[in-house]
Amino acid sequence: MSVTVVGSIAYDRVRTPFGERERMLGGAATHFALAASFFDEVRLVGPVGDDFADLDVLRTRGSNVDDVEHVVGGETFFWHGEYGWDLNSRDTLETRLGVFESFDPKLSDASKAADTLFLANIQPDVQRAVREQSRASFVAMDSMNLWIEIARDSLVATISMVDCVILNDAELRQLTEKPNLISAAREVLAMGPSVVVAKQGEYGAALITGDEFFSLPAYPLETVVDPTGAGDTFAGGFVGWLAGHPGDYRAAMAYGTALASYNVEEFGTERVQRLTREEIEDRVQHLGAMTRLTISA
Amino acid sequence: MSVTVVGSIAYDRVRTPFGERERMLGGAATHFALAASFFDEVRLVGPVGDDFADLDVLRTRGSNVDDVEHVVGGETFFWHGEYGWDLNSRDTLETRLGVFESFDPKLSDASKAADTLFLANIQPDVQRAVREQSRASFVAMDSMNLWIEIARDSLVATISMVDCVILNDAELRQLTEKPNLISAAREVLAMGPSVVVAKQGEYGAALITGDEFFSLPAYPLETVVDPTGAGDTFAGGFVGWLAGHPGDYRAAMAYGTALASYNVEEFGTERVQRLTREEIEDRVQHLGAMTRLTISA
Repeated sequence: MSVTVVGSIAYDRVRTPFGERERMLGGAATHFALAASFFDEVRLVGPVGDDFADLDVLRTRGSNVDDVEHVVGGETFFWHGEYGWDLNSRDTLETRLGVFESFDPKLSDASKAADTLFLANIQPDVQRAVREQSRASFVAMDSMNLWIEIARDSLVATISMVDCVILNDAELRQLTEKPNLISAAREVLAMGPSVVVAKQGEYGAALITGDEFFSLPAYPLETVVDPTGAGDTFAGGFVGWLAGHPGDYRAAMAYGTALASYNVEEFGTERVQRLTREEIEDRVQHLGAMTRLTISA
Repeated sequence: MSVTVVGSIAYDRVRTPFGERERMLGGAATHFALAASFFDEVRLVGPVGDDFADLDVLRTRGSNVDDVEHVVGGETFFWHGEYGWDLNSRDTLETRLGVFESFDPKLSDASKAADTLFLANIQPDVQRAVREQSRASFVAMDSMNLWIEIARDSLVATISMVDCVILNDAELRQLTEKPNLISAAREVLAMGPSVVVAKQGEYGAALITGDEFFSLPAYPLETVVDPTGAGDTFAGGFVGWLAGHPGDYRAAMAYGTALASYNVEEFGTERVQRLTREEIEDRVQHLGAMTRLTISA
């Protein structure tokens, strides 16, 4: 069993109310892999430039980087952003796509053969091309407002070919033009997937299937330092857990939530790089305790 | 045992994306009483004008209206508002305080003697005056952004005299100037109360005590018609349940959540007026099932 993730590997320049980093490792595939690698072998597929110097970090917990493509003469994807005082809003100050601009992923046989595939946020045509190469039995995907705005038809075509869609709740509303979360999720389910996960930032996440609604709060933290990568870290925990426990969605939500909570406590990948499985289990158990609701009749 | 609620009794003119009502019964004390009356005897304290014609509705499920004061020559509090497409924003188009402007509550002996007191959103000086008259062993309160802005010191003085504060999460942040919910709640606990409830609208509600964090999603609904009174209905279910089950906060959160979910399915008090205890229990049990998280080690 293994998990293939296709997406960005990046350097981020980030300022939050709690500090800044001039250049830290980032990217959706990076955050996903660091989280999912707790549960399964992960294979990263994505391009990097001449400036990339963190292959060892991508290899954390045994992740396979054979399909990380070094584009000679190119620059690694770069993102520069700033967060507002409550960390709920952020401004992108600069994006340099670099090698990501002409990314045309070719999966190796080993990456094609993984049971599980995660399509991180990329142009939906590219996601679909990857999905068509893969023989995975479970495929999950992310996307973003940009693609809803400029490539909606392609995005819907891609959604129709996956099992699980993981989006922010605002993106679900935008995609379906339905303000009600349940209605929006039902519309996405009708496109083909069997599971929709609505990420709700500080409020947690909700999971909707044909016959189930499940909601889990974010892990309560007094100190949130940098939300960058929280969504991809959540996805890594969620999809990584499911790879070994098909259909165990509620536990997967808890693992995703626990991983994301560690991710935001420090900048970039700093915390999750040195995280232990025991620390994850602590928070998963605590999530179980803090949501326990027993009603005596 | 009984619950006294002091607050507004009103007529509301409301437009939502799903319809409108020219004049419907509303007000914080009204919504609270209709919800709390499922669990205990409720005594309403609040003023009405010559135009008030719904005493019978206030009496639903046996609520006592002896302290509903008819101010001769006055007009009942009137609010006119409109909700945006996703129901998360609303504009107040007109407010006529009417008899509420000079409201100087005098509690009867029976209202003073109630074990439980809810101070609905009123000027905090008035809340404090009521609290000083009451012999309740458990006092909960609501407030709003206006008082945080123009009467913060008085509000903090009132908070220091109650056991439980129920506010929107945005109000908690505004009151404490702390963007982090946990930090904000801790600061309110340090003012004196032992319980803080953060209402989070469509995301549900969180409860914070000195040693506990509990979070419950809103009951998932595809059809939300009118959110007016949802917060006070939640408070009625929450405080009403606690009146008979002191310290049983998690179940109280579930009852508050279930009541609020029915409230928003129709305009104003329409749904909760004819609600049954069985219908409440259905949703409370469902909330238990939909939040159940069992992690195998």
